[in-house]
Amino acid sequence: MAPRDGTEPRSVGAVRPQTLSFTEPLRFRSGAVLDSYDLVYETYGTLNAARSNAVLACHALNAAHHVAGYYADDPDSLGWWDNMIGPGKPVDTEKFFVVGVNNVGGCFGSTGPKSIDPKSGKPYGSSFPVVTVEDWVDAQARLADRLGIASFAAVMGGSLGAMQALQWTISYPDRIRNAIVVAAAPKLSAQNIAFNEVARQAITTDPDFHGGDYYEHGVVPRRGLRLARMIGHITYLSDDAMMEKFGRALRADSIQFHFDVDFEIESYLRHQGDKFSEYFDANTYLLITRALDYFDPAAAHGDDLSRALAAARARFLVVSFTSDWRFAPSRAREIVKALLDNRCDVSYAEIDAPHGHDAFLLDDARYHALVRAYFDGVFERV
Amino acid sequence: MAPRDGTEPRSVGAVRPQTLSFTEPLRFRSGAVLDSYDLVYETYGTLNAARSNAVLACHALNAAHHVAGYYADDPDSLGWWDNMIGPGKPVDTEKFFVVGVNNVGGCFGSTGPKSIDPKSGKPYGSSFPVVTVEDWVDAQARLADRLGIASFAAVMGGSLGAMQALQWTISYPDRIRNAIVVAAAPKLSAQNIAFNEVARQAITTDPDFHGGDYYEHGVVPRRGLRLARMIGHITYLSDDAMMEKFGRALRADSIQFHFDVDFEIESYLRHQGDKFSEYFDANTYLLITRALDYFDPAAAHGDDLSRALAAARARFLVVSFTSDWRFAPSRAREIVKALLDNRCDVSYAEIDAPHGHDAFLLDDARYHALVRAYFDGVFERV
Repeated sequence: MAPRDGTEPRSVGAVRPQTLSFTEPLRFRSGAVLDSYDLVYETYGTLNAARSNAVLACHALNAAHHVAGYYADDPDSLGWWDNMIGPGKPVDTEKFFVVGVNNVGGCFGSTGPKSIDPKSGKPYGSSFPVVTVEDWVDAQARLADRLGIASFAAVMGGSLGAMQALQWTISYPDRIRNAIVVAAAPKLSAQNIAFNEVARQAITTDPDFHGGDYYEHGVVPRRGLRLARMIGHITYLSDDAMMEKFGRALRADSIQFHFDVDFEIESYLRHQGDKFSEYFDANTYLLITRALDYFDPAAAHGDDLSRALAAARARFLVVSFTSDWRFAPSRAREIVKALLDNRCDVSYAEIDAPHGHDAFLLDDARYHALVRAYFDGVFERV
Repeated sequence: MAPRDGTEPRSVGAVRPQTLSFTEPLRFRSGAVLDSYDLVYETYGTLNAARSNAVLACHALNAAHHVAGYYADDPDSLGWWDNMIGPGKPVDTEKFFVVGVNNVGGCFGSTGPKSIDPKSGKPYGSSFPVVTVEDWVDAQARLADRLGIASFAAVMGGSLGAMQALQWTISYPDRIRNAIVVAAAPKLSAQNIAFNEVARQAITTDPDFHGGDYYEHGVVPRRGLRLARMIGHITYLSDDAMMEKFGRALRADSIQFHFDVDFEIESYLRHQGDKFSEYFDANTYLLITRALDYFDPAAAHGDDLSRALAAARARFLVVSFTSDWRFAPSRAREIVKALLDNRCDVSYAEIDAPHGHDAFLLDDARYHALVRAYFDGVFERV
C-alpha cells in the first residue's frame, strides 16, 4: 500500500474545462452519424510517464465533466464528485490522473441538441441522434486516444455513470483494468422506464416544446422540464430520508387549505424543479433518459447477462445502498452474479445507508473508506 | 354463521344512481360553507326493519358512488368494487344494505368544482372549498340521516376510502359498529405528498388550467391531468407486478431510437393517462389529492395516533398488502398499534399479494375470504 502522508484530504482547487474537437465521424448505435463533434472535459492530477494511472469518472443524468474542484470565478461551483476525488481523497489525485467528460448529447459544452449543426446553421434540436451508453463509451474511448491513454486504470461511475463503466468492460475489455460500478442496475425495470416516460411526456407535451425545436421559437419547455426533475428527484431519495429531512413539516403554522405550498417537501421539490429548468436542456433530458431505458447489455445475448459480460477482463468493485429503491441492491447483485459466472475478480459491498439512490454522491464514511481501500489496490498495480 | 345456500356469487345486476339535495349548509374544516349541495349515491340490497344492516363503501381517488352492478345501458360499466359486493360475495347484499356515495367535491354528479354555483350562475371552479376527509364524513353522515341509518353496521374502504372509514370511528363513534380499513396509512409520508404535489403541479402549470376556472374557457387541462394520472398509476402498482405484466417488452421487434412508444409499459401508461383525462375533472383531482395530504388525525393530538383514536368504539378489520409501497404494511401497523393501545377489537391481516396498492381492488382469494369471514361476524351481530 502506498504510504499516506497524514495530511487532510483537500480539493483539487481551481480547475478549468478544456475542449477537444473530433472530425472523424461518430457512428451511433442507431445508425445515425455525427460528422464532427466537440467534447468538453476536465482533468485532475498528473498522467504518469507510463500513462497507466488514468481514471475516467462518468457522469449520470444531470452532471457533466466538472467532477472535482471549482471554477476560479465561482467558489461555490464544486464538482459533483468533489468529495470522492482530490488530493488525499478516496480517489487520490496525488496518485491518479482523473478525467471527467461531458457526454455527447449533453448540454454543458460537448456537442448536443442545443449545439449548432454546421449543416443547417441551426441548433440540432430534434435532429440530434438518439444516443446510447455504447455511443458514449465510444466517444470516451476517442477522447482517451487523444489524451494518450491506451488503458484506464479505472472507469468509475454511479447510476448511469456506472452503466458506462460496465459498458467499458464489454466494449473495450483491453482498455479498462478496474470498473467501479456504484448504485447500478444491469438494465431498467418497467417501473424505472415508467418514471422516465412520465418525465419525457411532461417535456414533449409542454406547448413550448415545439417538437424539440424550441430554440428557434425563443422558448424552452420549462414547465415540462421542471416536472421531469421533480419526478426524478422523488426517485433519488428514500422514503425514510425524505421523512427524516422533511416529514410533514409545514411552511406556516397550520395547513392553509390551498394548492400552493403547505408542506416543506412541496417547497423543496418546486425549488429543485425551478433550479434545474433554468440550466438544463430539455432535449438532453430526453436523450439521457432514453439512454437509460435502452441500456441492456444482456439483450443481444438472449437476456443472459453472464454471456454479455463474457469478454470482461477488468477487476470490479460493485457497490449498492440498502435504501436505494431506484436501483435496489438486488439489481446490483444481478451484475455480481453475472461477473462471478465469468470468474471475474469482484468485490461487492452493500452499504447500509439511509439516503436512497443519491447515496452514491454523498460522503458516507463506510462507502468512501471502501472506495479508498479499493483504489489503494488499484494504485499498487498501476 | 348465517347459512349459505351454495349458489355462486353474482352481480347485483342493473343499478341506478339516485340524487339527494341538501339545503342545510355544510361547514368545511377550512371554515368555508356550502349553502346547498347534491349527493349522488347508489344502494344495493335491502335495509332491514331494524335499519341495522347498512354498510357504507367509501371511494378512493378516481372512483365514486358506482360501487357494484352495472348500468342497464352499458353492461361494461361494472362498479369499482363489484368483485367484493353482491349476492353471495364477501359483502353479501342478500344480508347487507350497501351504500356508495360520490363525495362532495367529486365530478360524478355530487356537487363539486364543475357544478354550477347558484350564487354566480357559473361553475365553482377555483372557488370550490378545499375539502377534507372529515368534511366528506360529515356529508356522508347527513346522507345516512336522510336514508334513516342511525348507525352503520360497517364503513369500509381502501386507500383514501379506508381513511374515511377510520375518520368515521373518530367523528361518529356511535354511528359505526365496524370499520374495514384496507391498504391505508394514518397519514401520508413526505414521499406520498411529493407524488401528489408533482401531480398537482402538472395540472396547475398546464396553460389550459386558467387558475382552476378553465370551464369558462372551453378547455380542460388535459395534458396535466394525463401526467397526474400516469404518475399516480406508477405508485398503484408494485415494481414486481409491473415487471411481471410488462417487463421490458417492446411494441416493435426492436428499439426504434425515438421518444415515442418503444416499451409496452409506455403504451400502457399513456393509455391510462389519456383515458383518465377524458372523464375526470382536474379540480376534483386537486381536491382529492389535497384531502389525502391533509388527513392526519393524530396532528390535533400532539402527533399521538392512540389519543386521536381514543373515542373509537368500533370493531376493526385492518388489511395491508405486502407489495404495497404506497401505503406499506408498516403504515397499517401504526393504525393497529394505536387501536390496540385503546384496547379496541382489531383483526389485522397482511396479505401476501404481488400487485401493490391496487391489490385492494383485485379479486385475491385470501383477501376476499378474510373480508367474507369478517362480514359473517358482522352479520351475526346485526
